[in-house]
Amino acid sequence: MIDGPLEHLIKMLASLPGLGNRSARRIALHLLSRRDSAMRPLATMLERAAREIKNCTVCGNLDMHDPCRICRDERRDTKILCVVADVSDVWAIERTGAFRGRYHVLGGLLSALDGIGPEDLRIRGLEERVQAENPAEVILALSATVDGQSTAHFIADRMAGYGTNITRLAHGVPVGGELDYLDEGTITTALKSRSAA
Amino acid sequence: MIDGPLEHLIKMLASLPGLGNRSARRIALHLLSRRDSAMRPLATMLERAAREIKNCTVCGNLDMHDPCRICRDERRDTKILCVVADVSDVWAIERTGAFRGRYHVLGGLLSALDGIGPEDLRIRGLEERVQAENPAEVILALSATVDGQSTAHFIADRMAGYGTNITRLAHGVPVGGELDYLDEGTITTALKSRSAA
Repeated sequence: MIDGPLEHLIKMLASLPGLGNRSARRIALHLLSRRDSAMRPLATMLERAAREIKNCTVCGNLDMHDPCRICRDERRDTKILCVVADVSDVWAIERTGAFRGRYHVLGGLLSALDGIGPEDLRIRGLEERVQAENPAEVILALSATVDGQSTAHFIADRMAGYGTNITRLAHGVPVGGELDYLDEGTITTALKSRSAA
Repeated sequence: MIDGPLEHLIKMLASLPGLGNRSARRIALHLLSRRDSAMRPLATMLERAAREIKNCTVCGNLDMHDPCRICRDERRDTKILCVVADVSDVWAIERTGAFRGRYHVLGGLLSALDGIGPEDLRIRGLEERVQAENPAEVILALSATVDGQSTAHFIADRMAGYGTNITRLAHGVPVGGELDYLDEGTITTALKSRSAA
């Protein structure tokens, strides 16, 4: 193998999530055969994005402006706050178009295994925001995983005194999901939470 | 979704081989949360690699120097030339340590479907090299695909007059491969080319 910039580039690419040595080599060769049309523009755009994209100091979302466009949008409902783990969750919910309130991005989930405690997340900021903005409802839109659910419990406990309505996403059969492929936990929850047809 | 540099960055990442929208979003968020430790170094390394890595004018390999380190290495056998489609194939063969000759990188394979003809590959350069260096053997180390084999046929035809021994890689059962999972073509070839045990 070749030492120097090529080896370094492959190593850097291989450390990105979802990529390994083989895919990193493939991407490096792809870029090297398109230096002016793909490689240099990508370098420039990485530099530009690192410089121009900001974390919103209100909600933690990523945007070119601070506060972000969602926090600045006056048509959005300030009475309902949706707590998510990551910016990608904001994007996922925005893609549905089904939510018109505002967000609070925690920046991760509590995890004893990874040593992530409350002080590593924006939980203190959430409490301050709930005290200042006094929303009618806080939706805990966290993953249905062990870490997601323990984070939800932790936040619900902390929020108990603020007189805000704390809700969670419904659990059940995913739309388009076949019962045959679902785990027992999901089916049990969907049975317990059944509604009139 | 967010317009501006973030959307552009995700679009650029999603156009890399093996990546789609979801993995590109994931990589962009990963980088944005590590701007100084991963994002800016990657931008710098892309720029540096685009500037410093050269295509060897002799064999087509990528290296910081031209001619490349393999072409300059005097311990390597100049009497045997290995023809490969891409630089990644040079790396694959070098990783084995089983070949001590030199390479010639075609830069792709003939493909009627993709409109890639002999003039798009370094076939003219190969002929000139064979005439000038007069190697005892030219190994056609091309993929066992339709495009790979038609490229091998084409080159073997062109080389017929130069008095050089033209060889190909052996076909057969991959080392560690289970017969049960192999296609009929491979098994047929392996049977025909069987050797004494």
